[in-house]
Amino acid sequence: MIEPRVLKGFRDSLPQQELVRQNLMSRIQQIFRSFGFVPIDTPALEYTEVLLGKGGGETDKQMFRFTDNGGRDVALRFDLTVPLARYVAANYSQLSFPFKRYHMSKVWRGEKPQKGRYREFWQCDFDMVGVDNAQSDFEILLLIHTCLSEMKVGAFKVSVSHRGLLNLFLSGLGIEDKNAEVLRAIDKLNKIGVDGVREILLEEGLGDAAADMVLSFISIPKDNFGDTLDILVKMLGNCPGTERLAQIYDMMKACGIDGDFILDTSITRGLDYYTGIVYETLLTDMPQIGSICSGGRYNNLAGLYTKENLPGVGSCIGMDRLIAALEELGSPIVTDASYADVMVASSKENPAWSESVAMKLRALGVRTDSYVGEKGMGQQFAYAENNGIRFVVTAQTGDTFSVKEIATRKVTEGLTLADIAKLANG
Amino acid sequence: MIEPRVLKGFRDSLPQQELVRQNLMSRIQQIFRSFGFVPIDTPALEYTEVLLGKGGGETDKQMFRFTDNGGRDVALRFDLTVPLARYVAANYSQLSFPFKRYHMSKVWRGEKPQKGRYREFWQCDFDMVGVDNAQSDFEILLLIHTCLSEMKVGAFKVSVSHRGLLNLFLSGLGIEDKNAEVLRAIDKLNKIGVDGVREILLEEGLGDAAADMVLSFISIPKDNFGDTLDILVKMLGNCPGTERLAQIYDMMKACGIDGDFILDTSITRGLDYYTGIVYETLLTDMPQIGSICSGGRYNNLAGLYTKENLPGVGSCIGMDRLIAALEELGSPIVTDASYADVMVASSKENPAWSESVAMKLRALGVRTDSYVGEKGMGQQFAYAENNGIRFVVTAQTGDTFSVKEIATRKVTEGLTLADIAKLANG
Repeated sequence: MIEPRVLKGFRDSLPQQELVRQNLMSRIQQIFRSFGFVPIDTPALEYTEVLLGKGGGETDKQMFRFTDNGGRDVALRFDLTVPLARYVAANYSQLSFPFKRYHMSKVWRGEKPQKGRYREFWQCDFDMVGVDNAQSDFEILLLIHTCLSEMKVGAFKVSVSHRGLLNLFLSGLGIEDKNAEVLRAIDKLNKIGVDGVREILLEEGLGDAAADMVLSFISIPKDNFGDTLDILVKMLGNCPGTERLAQIYDMMKACGIDGDFILDTSITRGLDYYTGIVYETLLTDMPQIGSICSGGRYNNLAGLYTKENLPGVGSCIGMDRLIAALEELGSPIVTDASYADVMVASSKENPAWSESVAMKLRALGVRTDSYVGEKGMGQQFAYAENNGIRFVVTAQTGDTFSVKEIATRKVTEGLTLADIAKLANG
Repeated sequence: MIEPRVLKGFRDSLPQQELVRQNLMSRIQQIFRSFGFVPIDTPALEYTEVLLGKGGGETDKQMFRFTDNGGRDVALRFDLTVPLARYVAANYSQLSFPFKRYHMSKVWRGEKPQKGRYREFWQCDFDMVGVDNAQSDFEILLLIHTCLSEMKVGAFKVSVSHRGLLNLFLSGLGIEDKNAEVLRAIDKLNKIGVDGVREILLEEGLGDAAADMVLSFISIPKDNFGDTLDILVKMLGNCPGTERLAQIYDMMKACGIDGDFILDTSITRGLDYYTGIVYETLLTDMPQIGSICSGGRYNNLAGLYTKENLPGVGSCIGMDRLIAALEELGSPIVTDASYADVMVASSKENPAWSESVAMKLRALGVRTDSYVGEKGMGQQFAYAENNGIRFVVTAQTGDTFSVKEIATRKVTEGLTLADIAKLANG
């Protein structure tokens, strides 16, 4: 006997979990499609050279990398961004730019498994490639806003910043050479607080005055996007960063969504490859879940693979976090994840009966399971209950049926198929 | 510069292809769900021991198998049946039986790439585990029938047989020890014809008389399921195989679908693990595509991993073949795969305009792309045309809009947003 175990950090998805994930994915997909974003797919396995690029270090150590039977150095993809870059370079002549794509798929990382961290997990990316302007920045923000509004996750704030602002500010202080260190320190703000950031800044060699200036820069009031922007313009003058943000803000106002955005100079998105706007999204009532939608603008996405200059802007939805929020809120995306609405009990004498009744109910648009097991009525009801099925058709008299409602145990007789369809779908 | 190549036998999916695949998958999923079948997911990577079981030989050679960073012998799954067996054994106490599941996902095989054969491809399996009776056999056949009817692939025939029939027939001839050889020979019937099969049977040591008996057995008239069954009952008497088929045939008649099934004793499904009914499906007008839905009953699915006896019956849809048929037929599943229905042209002076008009159209249920590039009107129309977008909103006067229909180049002025929605969705 072989133990039916899965690898550490890998998971089976039970039907109840998988139904929720698929409900969510199809809802998100519908929204992406309503914006004219299209799906793509790329191989799970690629040449290591392609995935790793000039990289190495951490990424290399985390990859599932091996030599295939043909002696090729290959690896499982660890994100969907590197494959996107490779994809647009490889298929450049067959794509229309600006290219708006989404990609929901699995990625693999050999990280040390810990609570909430897995070696195989889903990513949901959406990006717009081939253009660098305020409209494309804004459209990604609008798409984030639309997703979260349609999901009815309650109030949320998208915090936006622009990498150019901090760069300019540090230049003004004459410490542009400390850019990476300052960025890395600020990125830890939520974890270690203002004092913690200050300590790191001092360790990195900033003087007291410079450290305080940086701290005051990331603490600019952020109640209203326009007010924060005014402060920044006064502080830094008109620069590409503030000009871009002003254009984006105009579009937010034109679309009536500016109230859900804040301009937050403490948003940096770590040391990622972002070069323009960056953003994170917190649910107002569930900030502890963390950002459920983050991203930013990057230049020269595919520079490793092509001479074409391909700027882009994109984002990803943290699906596990979003599912946690939807569960907390009792969202229909979670609660509608039933197996079927009606079950037809089995008839030992006449198995054709349950199959044909179920077929007729399906033709009326009712999701109908037909019990095919050999167990008695009591266990059939238990099966229905375990599977979230609400009504069980137990018997037929002439053209009408007896139906048991599982929640109340109430049996109603004399129902037509149309009556049952109304019960199930109404 | 790194060449953006993919591995041999692996493919990128372009948006147009991916839209079709996702349309098809969501349609199939809807049908599975209407039957109370539920989705599951399993890891792409598993312990080699778990995937290989007692196997070895061909399967072993075809696996993407390697040692991970933790020294574990692991491999990418090569089908969805072995993971199902492992899954039901591992999650037995959390599942309801009879367990009806579907699984649409990728599998990997290091086969020699050739036309139509890839090293990474999608599988779409549906199985019912935990029961061995005629009703469950029939329900899988009904589900196949429903899928193909709903897809509107034209006329089709599901050819059904039962492994027990040939076994019994060979016992009658006193050559039950040649079962595997005869099965393997018959399985080649479509490729090599009757004479070819006869030759192999003789090579395998059957006498002329026995070979002719086998050939006449697999050539029993198959115009009508009931007639063929009568012949078989006369020939073999009542046996478990004919009794099961008779019960299934009764259910076909009760559901009014018997005309689309034939009983074909030449169907064997090769040397697979099937133990009861087996079936294949051909499209009447496109037999050259091959079987687009095959499967059968197997006993003791998970015997390698658990002491529970878990019989099952299942099938898989050949998605690439089905897509080929749908393309040939000009199915809406293929032709509806447009990026969006409407595009709002860009306005250099007022980018907020296109974004806000697009937002309003989406709120009316119109899939609307907003052009975010920097190109002139001519290239914007080309972008719309390349992406299958039918209407372009070019300008606004008061509350009405100018709209160009891409197919006819006709511009209509004075349309309200509601008019545009009617054009796009009507």
